[in-house]
Amino acid sequence: MKDALAYTAANREKFLNELLAWLSIPSVSTDQAFKDDCQRAAEWCADNMRAMGLENVAVLPTGGHPVVYGDWLHAGADKPTVLVYGHYDVQPAVMEDGWTHPPFEPIVRDGKIYARGATDDKGLVMCQLKAMEALLATGGAPVNVKYLIEGEEESGSQNLQRFISNNLDKLKADICLISDTGMKSASEPLLIYGLRGLVTMELTVSGPKHDLHSGIGGILHNPAQALCEIIAKLHNPDGSVNVAGFYDDVQPVSDEERAMLNLSNYSRQDWEERMGDLPEWGEAGYTMIERTSIRPTLEINGIAGGYAGEGFKTVIGATARAKISCRLVPNQDPFKIFELVKAEIERITPPTVRSTIKLHDTGYPAITPTDHPAARAAVEAFKYHWETPALFARMGGSIPVVAEFQKQLNLPVILMGFGLPDSAAHGPDESFHVEMYDKGIDTLVVYFHELAK
Amino acid sequence: MKDALAYTAANREKFLNELLAWLSIPSVSTDQAFKDDCQRAAEWCADNMRAMGLENVAVLPTGGHPVVYGDWLHAGADKPTVLVYGHYDVQPAVMEDGWTHPPFEPIVRDGKIYARGATDDKGLVMCQLKAMEALLATGGAPVNVKYLIEGEEESGSQNLQRFISNNLDKLKADICLISDTGMKSASEPLLIYGLRGLVTMELTVSGPKHDLHSGIGGILHNPAQALCEIIAKLHNPDGSVNVAGFYDDVQPVSDEERAMLNLSNYSRQDWEERMGDLPEWGEAGYTMIERTSIRPTLEINGIAGGYAGEGFKTVIGATARAKISCRLVPNQDPFKIFELVKAEIERITPPTVRSTIKLHDTGYPAITPTDHPAARAAVEAFKYHWETPALFARMGGSIPVVAEFQKQLNLPVILMGFGLPDSAAHGPDESFHVEMYDKGIDTLVVYFHELAK
Repeated sequence: MKDALAYTAANREKFLNELLAWLSIPSVSTDQAFKDDCQRAAEWCADNMRAMGLENVAVLPTGGHPVVYGDWLHAGADKPTVLVYGHYDVQPAVMEDGWTHPPFEPIVRDGKIYARGATDDKGLVMCQLKAMEALLATGGAPVNVKYLIEGEEESGSQNLQRFISNNLDKLKADICLISDTGMKSASEPLLIYGLRGLVTMELTVSGPKHDLHSGIGGILHNPAQALCEIIAKLHNPDGSVNVAGFYDDVQPVSDEERAMLNLSNYSRQDWEERMGDLPEWGEAGYTMIERTSIRPTLEINGIAGGYAGEGFKTVIGATARAKISCRLVPNQDPFKIFELVKAEIERITPPTVRSTIKLHDTGYPAITPTDHPAARAAVEAFKYHWETPALFARMGGSIPVVAEFQKQLNLPVILMGFGLPDSAAHGPDESFHVEMYDKGIDTLVVYFHELAK
Repeated sequence: MKDALAYTAANREKFLNELLAWLSIPSVSTDQAFKDDCQRAAEWCADNMRAMGLENVAVLPTGGHPVVYGDWLHAGADKPTVLVYGHYDVQPAVMEDGWTHPPFEPIVRDGKIYARGATDDKGLVMCQLKAMEALLATGGAPVNVKYLIEGEEESGSQNLQRFISNNLDKLKADICLISDTGMKSASEPLLIYGLRGLVTMELTVSGPKHDLHSGIGGILHNPAQALCEIIAKLHNPDGSVNVAGFYDDVQPVSDEERAMLNLSNYSRQDWEERMGDLPEWGEAGYTMIERTSIRPTLEINGIAGGYAGEGFKTVIGATARAKISCRLVPNQDPFKIFELVKAEIERITPPTVRSTIKLHDTGYPAITPTDHPAARAAVEAFKYHWETPALFARMGGSIPVVAEFQKQLNLPVILMGFGLPDSAAHGPDESFHVEMYDKGIDTLVVYFHELAK
């Protein structure tokens, strides 16, 4: 391990230049105009994998942008096999969004790498690859590894889910390791052991056969109004979700776990950065961090009805629509929750309008026990560079593919990331601290050793 | 009067051909591509006015499309002066909307004139002009007349309101006569003596500083949800508007007037054409026709928030918006109602979000007493062609310029129209029954005589 860490120390500049080169490829997955760039970014990644000594490296086609695969399986059958997941695709980025430097001309300024993808996720994938490079260059890795780097994370990972189903044997492993998250602060590492699940749906409320002139207003239930009345009933005054059976399957969380999670509760400053001086809102009886991690929610992600553009149209829209999502926690089932929400909406829809509710997408919640060896190993690994013990957290968001790894491959999933809250993952001037890049590489060298213990 | 009616009988074909010629000019006021056509339609109208013997005919510039003016003021100072209002502009129309014949190539088929503007409003303006032509060609009119035909009715009449203010002397009259409405059926003429007023406004509910990823859902009041909660509170369970003071200024309506209005209540068939088998909705204690005429309403004309397009974005929108309008009845003041709605929304906005309410537009309600001589004269005039006595009605919609005539010129306003419910005023295959065109011309000949009595 010492040799490997000496290698990383000696190769900081090389590692940085490699990352900068990869970042200069605009691999925006949501825009077909960047299709060739996505292919280029995948091939760059594969070349890098080959150069560092991974085997069976391949750029594998999917229904969309390809997946990059590479492995090294010579640690021995008694050593764990780690499936490392990451993505080479990035969010769209144009100067007009407020960038101070072209997003695909990476630069280092004041100790930070500025570029689209700097943390999300090319920087973090490179942490994983460069840690392995150091190990392979200095006698081999203590664990077996399989790298799976996809190109559609920012556009829903639909093809990856099929790829996993079709390659269960190839992807067989003991642990899934993901670097696609951040730290609480530069001095507080974060170990994410759970993600919320997700079910998304669309509600349409319909009334008249066609849009009507609102001169007729007063005799029919305006669908936009009826939609609002329905939505208003989906929460109780105490902030809880008012859907019969919604909380039935929620796994109780121990006082110990709650106390642990509250170590990384939102600070007043975290709140004000997002919400200014507005008071908080949410389910009574839970702290903010609990509400975004161990409690399920129901959110309105979009509403539309009638005419809401410039100017004014005195119209009564024939329909009104809402996009609704629920974030789910263990052991909620997204399909069951969809049926419960659907039934509740049907029950509260007044007879004067019609409701239809369509399922859009689902993702199961995921959780790894905090005392799992893969979690304990991460805590140890973070100690190499940080004094503060790693905080354990559950993510409020969802990475549907994580649940796929858990469900289809039956893998515990550990998320270790090195981005900081100021890294602006989906915003302008996305950045990655060079120091965090270096520390991340070292930490993963140590982590692979800890896993082998 | 007999001579004039003989003239109309002898000139049916000429009148029809003139209308068809005017209809072939695509005077779409909302689309600048038709600016020259609007000018042409105005000049066609002026030429027609001159040819029939009106005086002081002019195409007068406004900030937008011009106004056409012409008068004949030789009936004597003891005779009333009638200001006739109509418009030469039309709604947009393209084949793709479902027309079975090009909308600006007018044809007569099965006794109906098909073209954009056939009833709304060129056909009805021509009823007014051709009635006067018949009178002027046979010895002169029994009343003084001023014709004011504008070109921006379908786009808000903003310039006309200024034109009226700047020409109060020129437009001075005793009665305002408008043909821009329809009949209840071919056998049931309709005399409209009131229109609802209107106030339109936009509500914005804001929360976080930027759109947020809904993974953070659970700790902040989602603005789309808060907007729905606010809107849901704006009506009581009995369908009445839940805004303090909203009904305070509503002028009581006598039982006699209510009984009269109920003669033209919506039929089951009227309802089903619009709403299918959904049950009705609205303010308890009032019939459908009452709810759309003598009662004020509050309607949601548009809602928007978050992402409501194709697919799904798990976003919490920083803001959500609603377009809200109130239809008003005498003696409600649109500015006062705006203040009441604004105050109510501010009162019910939870502290966890912010509301801003902006006034968009206003129009006063308008009403002419049903026993006014101009109304009585209309009842008599309809008798010439119809056995069923004219039904008295108040329109659910608003023609803001009508209130301007009432307020600025202090004129009683009478609306007599000859379109039928199947005329599809703003839809594809707009039409006007040739029989109604002919009867309309005759009726107005009689009306001008009745007014002079």
